[in-house]
Amino acid sequence: MFESAELGHKIDKARYQEEMPELRQALLDAQYELREKGDFPLIILINGFDGAGRGETLHQLNEWMDPRLIQVSAETALFSSSEESAQRPWMWRYWNALPPKGRTGVFFGSWYSDVLFGRVYDKTDEKQAMLQIGQILAFEKKLCAEGALILKFWFHLSKEKQKKRLKSLEADKKSAWRVTETDWNHHKMYDRIYHQAEQLLRMTSTGEAPWVLVEGEDARYRDLTVARVIYQALRSRLNRGGERRHHAAAEVAPLLPPVDGLQLLDTLVLDRTVDKEEYKTELAVLQGRLHELTRHPNFKKQALMIVFEGNDAAGKGGAIRRVTAALDARRYRIVPIAAPSQDERAKPWLWRFWRETPKKGGITIFDRSWYGRVLVERVENFCSEHEWMRAYNEINNFEQQLVAGNIIVVKFWLAISSEEQLKRFKEREETGFKRFKITEEDWRNREKWDQYKDAVCDMIDRTSTQSAPWTLVEANNKLYARLKILRTLCNALESRLLKSNG
Amino acid sequence: MFESAELGHKIDKARYQEEMPELRQALLDAQYELREKGDFPLIILINGFDGAGRGETLHQLNEWMDPRLIQVSAETALFSSSEESAQRPWMWRYWNALPPKGRTGVFFGSWYSDVLFGRVYDKTDEKQAMLQIGQILAFEKKLCAEGALILKFWFHLSKEKQKKRLKSLEADKKSAWRVTETDWNHHKMYDRIYHQAEQLLRMTSTGEAPWVLVEGEDARYRDLTVARVIYQALRSRLNRGGERRHHAAAEVAPLLPPVDGLQLLDTLVLDRTVDKEEYKTELAVLQGRLHELTRHPNFKKQALMIVFEGNDAAGKGGAIRRVTAALDARRYRIVPIAAPSQDERAKPWLWRFWRETPKKGGITIFDRSWYGRVLVERVENFCSEHEWMRAYNEINNFEQQLVAGNIIVVKFWLAISSEEQLKRFKEREETGFKRFKITEEDWRNREKWDQYKDAVCDMIDRTSTQSAPWTLVEANNKLYARLKILRTLCNALESRLLKSNG
Repeated sequence: MFESAELGHKIDKARYQEEMPELRQALLDAQYELREKGDFPLIILINGFDGAGRGETLHQLNEWMDPRLIQVSAETALFSSSEESAQRPWMWRYWNALPPKGRTGVFFGSWYSDVLFGRVYDKTDEKQAMLQIGQILAFEKKLCAEGALILKFWFHLSKEKQKKRLKSLEADKKSAWRVTETDWNHHKMYDRIYHQAEQLLRMTSTGEAPWVLVEGEDARYRDLTVARVIYQALRSRLNRGGERRHHAAAEVAPLLPPVDGLQLLDTLVLDRTVDKEEYKTELAVLQGRLHELTRHPNFKKQALMIVFEGNDAAGKGGAIRRVTAALDARRYRIVPIAAPSQDERAKPWLWRFWRETPKKGGITIFDRSWYGRVLVERVENFCSEHEWMRAYNEINNFEQQLVAGNIIVVKFWLAISSEEQLKRFKEREETGFKRFKITEEDWRNREKWDQYKDAVCDMIDRTSTQSAPWTLVEANNKLYARLKILRTLCNALESRLLKSNG
Repeated sequence: MFESAELGHKIDKARYQEEMPELRQALLDAQYELREKGDFPLIILINGFDGAGRGETLHQLNEWMDPRLIQVSAETALFSSSEESAQRPWMWRYWNALPPKGRTGVFFGSWYSDVLFGRVYDKTDEKQAMLQIGQILAFEKKLCAEGALILKFWFHLSKEKQKKRLKSLEADKKSAWRVTETDWNHHKMYDRIYHQAEQLLRMTSTGEAPWVLVEGEDARYRDLTVARVIYQALRSRLNRGGERRHHAAAEVAPLLPPVDGLQLLDTLVLDRTVDKEEYKTELAVLQGRLHELTRHPNFKKQALMIVFEGNDAAGKGGAIRRVTAALDARRYRIVPIAAPSQDERAKPWLWRFWRETPKKGGITIFDRSWYGRVLVERVENFCSEHEWMRAYNEINNFEQQLVAGNIIVVKFWLAISSEEQLKRFKEREETGFKRFKITEEDWRNREKWDQYKDAVCDMIDRTSTQSAPWTLVEANNKLYARLKILRTLCNALESRLLKSNG
């Protein structure tokens, strides 16, 4: 597939000087318009062979455009020196580096370097590479679905020309420092890199984010090509304006409640209870067990994410406290989730949850979570049907990456009956320190009880996976609920920690 | 000073059970009120002797209060494992961990551990400790000035009782893991720790944030004391409500322009020019020099922060581009500063600048900066006179810490004449890709030319320090300005990099 980038493309100086100034101005203009509109980010990926002008192009981008509106990320997992990133799932570093809407993010190396050189250096096997490619495809698809414009450049150079180029760089005193031992090593591995890159590019050139091949030998050809591609892609997207492609939502099969009216939540016996004395004894035992498990040597190589969702007033806060009572306060972090802030809205919606991924040995407890997307945002129409329909898949993919990154994911839905909720709402209005816990909004949500119920059932159907299953908690009795939660946590930890022993 | 905490304080069970439940509820109530009002953060520091119940108290805090509204930080510089923090100035980690308004942040160990054990282990000398204490005082003062409620607890235990306590913890199978070798080592160093701690506490017990001594032997006494202190401090602050103590601004000598009307800016010859050919040659030379300097081996141990301030349309963007043209795009980051976002407003005002501190070997370029506090915020009355008056000191302190953390700070004021600005504004309105650069606001600011001028002169008077001086750039001629900026940067780098050689 690289043949067209070995033809010896060239642009003469006259043509370059004729076209470039106008193009630069147009590019700058488009960049400012992007900032003004601020409704999508531009993401530029730079990859390719050593000596094919990747560094120069990165430099040029900052020359042509306004560098104040560009952020560059050169981090990769394989060659990383960042302790912070090493503690998190693979894709965490890239999520963190995403530009906000209206800005440009340039990724140098990026996720593709990890896959490519993982294979070239034999650090990953084919199967692992396939998994990574799957994650990449899902990641880019998600970004595109939320409006990002992704341009992926591969800078190519034939083996012979690479050699020539490295030698000529070395010969010039000014540029000699740019040729490293790694470059020559990579030159020796040219065929291997070529082979792996070809496979990788073929598998990741999608309709939404195709690769653009650029022959790297002639600087003028390279520059003009890159500047043009960026300009035209950006211009045409800007011109399309507000009308974002909502892939005809009607084509998707609608989610309908079962025709016989029987839903999963109906099958729960919400009134399960436990004797108070029994509760006290078992609580102490379970908390002790949980404490021990989080101090297990194997836990240092893992991390834990706990999700608490449930009806309003279902007792999430109380349950969380019974869990944290068993934990070292220096090891956990509770993240209460409300509506996203201004800064968070400028990023893909999952971004703020990626950010909170715990380090190894850490515990993050979510009081409400990313499931708001398919619950409150669905019911209250804060996002389109297409958006929340897509979210099931995005969520499953997110959790799958967490699990692959050695994070244990445990999710609780605390279910109470409508009558029990009414009782608790009234109680809250009357009790001093609980009065902050009840708002107008709670009463409004209550009116939509049935809509929420549909949303919850769909959520559980679509996101209870083997690696991150939902646990439904019958919560009309708070004591029963707390014990079930603690027991589930202990079992989840035990099975994962012992597994990693064997 | 620890005598009162060696008296053998005790609370019997009956009294504890009588008082505690009510206190807990009141505490929870106050915590929710804090969240609702959201106008200041509660910061709790936990320090003291091993075995004096610091860990238990941390745990209790999360039991008594709603842990979802508390964030715990146990990081310290001395015992840190974080690569990210090690790359930044000392206080960076603590700035990063500050809770937003309405929330509670518990610091375990914190900045005091660094000073205390730095001395105990002889890792720092007395002079360094004094410098650290100076920074702590300024830091806490700043937090208090912006409304934070700081409660500093020192958990005390006599030497004899410490021994007894460690032994009894070890004897119990359930708690044996909590006694580490470090604890016994610290026990051997008790006298040394006692001595250093006494000095430290005495010097940092201020009117705004005094130390609270807690005898640590009896758990009930300890708990009741801590819970009470927190409750009463929080309650009384909440009751005081909106009326924040604006220390009578009238007492401060007002800033008046010089009576003879002559200001520093008037002394600049704004029309300095340079020949175009000469410009081209020198630009290339300076950019080459700058490039070399940032690749100097010593630069890896330093970092660079460049501040660009100036009149609207003074040419900051163009100047920044001439600087970045000389830099490796993977090493620098441009931070354009606009009005703070919602998330940023919930933190002390300097927080968002602390966050952007570069790592070692890194370069951060600010397009406008923290000086907005004493420029636009002063002129437009976005903050009170007391707030911007205080800011000069806060800024000097901030920059001093940057310099102490091996960061080279270079600040430019780009000055143009009122006539030149008018010319450029008109030009911008007419030129295609520049039309985004001119807004209604620019015209409004222009009407306040004289007020801005006063603010700029005061700023330079008060914040041009030896370690972080201002460079005034005559910018009516853009070419001249760019050369001066590049030359200044080269000289600043050269003097710092060569110094660290010797």
